[in-house]
Amino acid sequence: MYGTVMYAPGDVRYEQIAEPKILKPTDAIIKLAATCVCGSDLWPYRGASPLDGPTNMGHEYCGVVTEVGSAVKDIKIGQFVVGSFATSDNTCPHCHHGFQSSCEQREFMLGAQAQYARVPLADGTLVATETMPEDDLIPSLLAASDVLGTGWYAADAARVQPGSTVAVVGDGAVGLMGVLAAKQMGATRIIAMSRHKTRQDLALEYGATDIVNERGDEGVARIRKMTKNIGADAVLECVGTNESMHQAINAARPGGSIGFVGVPHGVELKGEFLFFSQKNLLGGPAPVRRFLPHLIDLVLTRKINPGKVFDLELPLSDVAEGYKAMDERRAIKTLLRV
Amino acid sequence: MYGTVMYAPGDVRYEQIAEPKILKPTDAIIKLAATCVCGSDLWPYRGASPLDGPTNMGHEYCGVVTEVGSAVKDIKIGQFVVGSFATSDNTCPHCHHGFQSSCEQREFMLGAQAQYARVPLADGTLVATETMPEDDLIPSLLAASDVLGTGWYAADAARVQPGSTVAVVGDGAVGLMGVLAAKQMGATRIIAMSRHKTRQDLALEYGATDIVNERGDEGVARIRKMTKNIGADAVLECVGTNESMHQAINAARPGGSIGFVGVPHGVELKGEFLFFSQKNLLGGPAPVRRFLPHLIDLVLTRKINPGKVFDLELPLSDVAEGYKAMDERRAIKTLLRV
Repeated sequence: MYGTVMYAPGDVRYEQIAEPKILKPTDAIIKLAATCVCGSDLWPYRGASPLDGPTNMGHEYCGVVTEVGSAVKDIKIGQFVVGSFATSDNTCPHCHHGFQSSCEQREFMLGAQAQYARVPLADGTLVATETMPEDDLIPSLLAASDVLGTGWYAADAARVQPGSTVAVVGDGAVGLMGVLAAKQMGATRIIAMSRHKTRQDLALEYGATDIVNERGDEGVARIRKMTKNIGADAVLECVGTNESMHQAINAARPGGSIGFVGVPHGVELKGEFLFFSQKNLLGGPAPVRRFLPHLIDLVLTRKINPGKVFDLELPLSDVAEGYKAMDERRAIKTLLRV
Repeated sequence: MYGTVMYAPGDVRYEQIAEPKILKPTDAIIKLAATCVCGSDLWPYRGASPLDGPTNMGHEYCGVVTEVGSAVKDIKIGQFVVGSFATSDNTCPHCHHGFQSSCEQREFMLGAQAQYARVPLADGTLVATETMPEDDLIPSLLAASDVLGTGWYAADAARVQPGSTVAVVGDGAVGLMGVLAAKQMGATRIIAMSRHKTRQDLALEYGATDIVNERGDEGVARIRKMTKNIGADAVLECVGTNESMHQAINAARPGGSIGFVGVPHGVELKGEFLFFSQKNLLGGPAPVRRFLPHLIDLVLTRKINPGKVFDLELPLSDVAEGYKAMDERRAIKTLLRV
């Protein structure tokens, strides 16, 4: 079969690779309906994260089950499934507390930018739809696998509630999904921090009420001015740099909450700063599995359209161009049809 | 009148100082019933925090109102009052959200280790008792002013709930009050990290179910072992060093919460560590005012006895010995009768 291999920063190839096999009795194999390129894939693509030799890329996925291991009880061959980028048994104490992305048996998905993929812990990781979804819903179901689930977690971790004033730091796909999530959770004011017209437009479509162009201290000053010097109740940090993290913390009111989902690169927080800021902090790899049934339901009933975040759709064979377009910010997020 | 002045590390003097005056119409003056030495007073005493010239010490207080400013409406001369170390108007947005220690008008109390003290923002800061409290309750009412309120906030920020497994890092007076608070909030397991017999005994009396002697990574390993490798639901950080903060974070389960109230000295947290730890963090100067009515009620109805944390009682004139005994860890906390 064919799949995606990153050889070095900037060097992504679509080439013949080994078909995935059942390695453990709890595995399943799925035939991808679609996959996509993640913002986090750009870290190694840009040389900002180390690459340990040629790597099979891709961790966002949905598709049809073609094979299951002997211990898989609930997931059946032929079902359409969506799963998280972090696999989970959904039975350990961390899973029971809703933190499936810290499951005792967690693995991170690999090699999903391909025709087929192996999903460990299939029963705990995958959520099946009752019937085969309509084709136009595939992008939105795929989004639930990571980018929507991650934006949702950012809003959940930031404790967005009906009536909240929310600020979203980062106008990438995750930030835009954060806007959608905050809207669904009943926020009345959603301030998107963005300086790119196409992203601003999509943020407004997803429910943003205000756009702030400024960044860093200037961005914080704008948020303060817009909130009578109080600060936002909830801030979604969807970038992962030291500047964006401090911007997020400073934009929240005392007692407010920051949900941080941008994978941190070079972030350092001083104890005194955190102490006197007096704000709730929760972040990490999103426990997408906790939200998946609800998100899939919202998609299937057409209450949300997260798939719109994919503004470039390519066949999987053009994956290299998919990375390039995102790297050059020509595309917010690339969908790859398999 | 007489009060306490710190001239330099280790140099605390009881001497004649100017009587406090009403400086703003929202001020009140109180005659102290008792005051005490705080763990945070030891930072400058030990030279770990800078001292800006001779400083009037003390921020924990209760006593009788002797004078009020022209704008004070609710607090009356002759009332017995307890207030927080952080003053607050109790009307600003941060106060409304329960974060009075970040009040827009906040000041930190000064000069309360004295016969009289000025309390800014009297109506917002002070809570009066209905009648004059019995003398044996004075230590517990004084404790509510800071050490109990701070331990309570640590448990609140760590989201202690009925059934929680709680770990308390730090066996100083605040840590011991954290044990008391966790017990009141219904925690079923309370692990006190302490290696001092007298403090262990008081922790057990306040509701600790387990004592852990080990610190740092060894302490974390013990907590993991005691919790089937899950970690604690809630951890109260009551020290403020880099080691204790990392110990607290590592002792919590993913999705668990850390309430940190030890004033940080040299604490640095890496973004990647916080991200992959995936734990709730909330700390800061305790919004004692939020809890005061409830805490005063618990004391007056004799449901709790936080005053027992004072294991040394001296007349105010012996304040220098009060500091010394705490510095040398001969005393957990010194009460000063005025």
